[in-house]
Amino acid sequence: MSKPISLAIIGATGGVGSAFISALPSIRLPPSTAAPQLIFLSRSNQQLYDSSYAAVSPSSLASSDAKLLSLPDIASYLASAPSKVVLIDNTSSQDVAEAYPLFLSEGVSVITPNKKAFSGSLRLWDDIFAATSRNALVYHESSVGAGLPIISTLNDLLKTGDQVTRIEGVFSGTMSFLFNTFAPAAGGSGGKWSEIVAQAKAAGYTEPDPRDDLNGMDVARKCVILARVAGLKVAGTDAFPIQSLIPKALESAASADEFMQKLPNHDDEMEGYKTEAEKQGKVVRFVGKVDVEKGQVKVGLEMVEQGSPIASLKGSDNLICFYTKRYGANPLVVQGAGAGNDVTAMGVLGDLLKCVERLG
Amino acid sequence: MSKPISLAIIGATGGVGSAFISALPSIRLPPSTAAPQLIFLSRSNQQLYDSSYAAVSPSSLASSDAKLLSLPDIASYLASAPSKVVLIDNTSSQDVAEAYPLFLSEGVSVITPNKKAFSGSLRLWDDIFAATSRNALVYHESSVGAGLPIISTLNDLLKTGDQVTRIEGVFSGTMSFLFNTFAPAAGGSGGKWSEIVAQAKAAGYTEPDPRDDLNGMDVARKCVILARVAGLKVAGTDAFPIQSLIPKALESAASADEFMQKLPNHDDEMEGYKTEAEKQGKVVRFVGKVDVEKGQVKVGLEMVEQGSPIASLKGSDNLICFYTKRYGANPLVVQGAGAGNDVTAMGVLGDLLKCVERLG
Repeated sequence: MSKPISLAIIGATGGVGSAFISALPSIRLPPSTAAPQLIFLSRSNQQLYDSSYAAVSPSSLASSDAKLLSLPDIASYLASAPSKVVLIDNTSSQDVAEAYPLFLSEGVSVITPNKKAFSGSLRLWDDIFAATSRNALVYHESSVGAGLPIISTLNDLLKTGDQVTRIEGVFSGTMSFLFNTFAPAAGGSGGKWSEIVAQAKAAGYTEPDPRDDLNGMDVARKCVILARVAGLKVAGTDAFPIQSLIPKALESAASADEFMQKLPNHDDEMEGYKTEAEKQGKVVRFVGKVDVEKGQVKVGLEMVEQGSPIASLKGSDNLICFYTKRYGANPLVVQGAGAGNDVTAMGVLGDLLKCVERLG
Repeated sequence: MSKPISLAIIGATGGVGSAFISALPSIRLPPSTAAPQLIFLSRSNQQLYDSSYAAVSPSSLASSDAKLLSLPDIASYLASAPSKVVLIDNTSSQDVAEAYPLFLSEGVSVITPNKKAFSGSLRLWDDIFAATSRNALVYHESSVGAGLPIISTLNDLLKTGDQVTRIEGVFSGTMSFLFNTFAPAAGGSGGKWSEIVAQAKAAGYTEPDPRDDLNGMDVARKCVILARVAGLKVAGTDAFPIQSLIPKALESAASADEFMQKLPNHDDEMEGYKTEAEKQGKVVRFVGKVDVEKGQVKVGLEMVEQGSPIASLKGSDNLICFYTKRYGANPLVVQGAGAGNDVTAMGVLGDLLKCVERLG
């Protein structure tokens, strides 16, 4: 039996953190591998750890009055643990992301669905991967498409020597739902654009302020991550065109409510795109594109062929097409739910199992 | 720098073997990892190895006059190597497959696209996995769907604690081409069934004897593998219904030529399925289904909804749907070329990189 790996979880009680912790006991470890032990847990204003690295229980976090450690203090604490340590960052915090190089340089592996670290400054990206080593690994499957095998598939293609020429797809569950409803592949209409946005907001499919989805930034961040994994030195989301679906006149709306009230005045614009696509026998979709060969990234509306995988998407599914030299004209496609706590936690758990296999 | 892993390749000069060897120098290894060294190569009647385990060169295999070792002798030779050894079986040999438990028990890891080991007797399957250990791993990604991430995705779902309820899809590139052409999702027709089979045969999309595709056995073998990975103790391809597309009257045809000559007499049968599907607004496809919950496997013709992922397939692509508890109503879908030397070799190379990460 190998020595158990120690786990530190930042963001232990959020949606993904809770799903991760509740699924942790049901993972299937490789033969002769001890179950990972929790040695550090934190949420916004509480932390739980033991100075002699004894295992801690998630149920005790809420009543913990342990002294709050700073990120560098946490890194030092974990660096001195008597076993190999994996840090799970289930937050979307920029501060935690900025500390990854420090954790890695202390020999602590990092697993996270946090997009900030990988779509922010190129400097941070470079620092993170420069700090990895044999015992300090980084996995971030869930930073794009939650538990879908996207980052791992892209890495497998690249590491086995294939040439990835182009990556494109629908990277936002919210955008997927909005357009699959607004302009169904089967024809017809699910209603006016503003009504569909309102419906999605009511169902919790959008961020509390739908502009945070409609500005295209979430898709852009995922494209930055994929582009960088594919080897492009993309400076960030400022470095390429992103089509925002927030009408110019509503950019300065004071609140989400004001925005939603005024959105119906701009339905004609989206209706125009839809009609234009129909004239060409196509449907309109919000697509992210990484042209690896040309070194270009682009995010925005596209007219998509009827019957194509992107046009045929359902519900709020994501879909990612990898065009490569080996796969030729037809891409390798991965499709499915790309958001949600359970499937995001699944991606994190999958990464953990890879860490356990490599470190154990 | 770690000690290099040693590689033994059986079937080094076939289609997949050649593609593997030519792609091997372009794989991207983890940091501080030495490139794997070839210490044993074989093809039908030749072997190449060095008694002191020096690296051998593929270009020397054709001129090698080394004494031919039996499978047990090869296992002993590899077991005494001064480094960890991975055996790559690029054959479709039953004999080699039967020897995997021996290799594994000697501490030699096994990677293979060979379906025989995993779809044959349940006894062999059990023996193989019972013989694995920390240093003797088994990977067989390419045994289903070539380089597509199918086995790894299924394993990730299961290992992270998801419940896979159903797996279904188009598992044969040949069947995919035949039905996408015969009954296109867009409607219309690519011609008579027998003409399309002849066209596929001429283009090299079928086995030399197309009956080897039309009998459904290839799809059935892949379903056995997926069912077993998912935990079902399926005894073999005899244990469930397989619909053969070889007309009863032609089962005894003496040759592939005679079969092809007489196939046009049976076009009405397939035309009937097609018309029946059209009446229901559907298309006919050759589908493999593993119902994990009910413990049932089924291979044969299905009437598939227009606009569904399976109906929308193109060319000779494979498509696999994983229905799971976490993913809910919409499955996780993987789609793309599921046959061909380069993509099969890619799956093998991906497995090799996983072995290197775990053993290195």
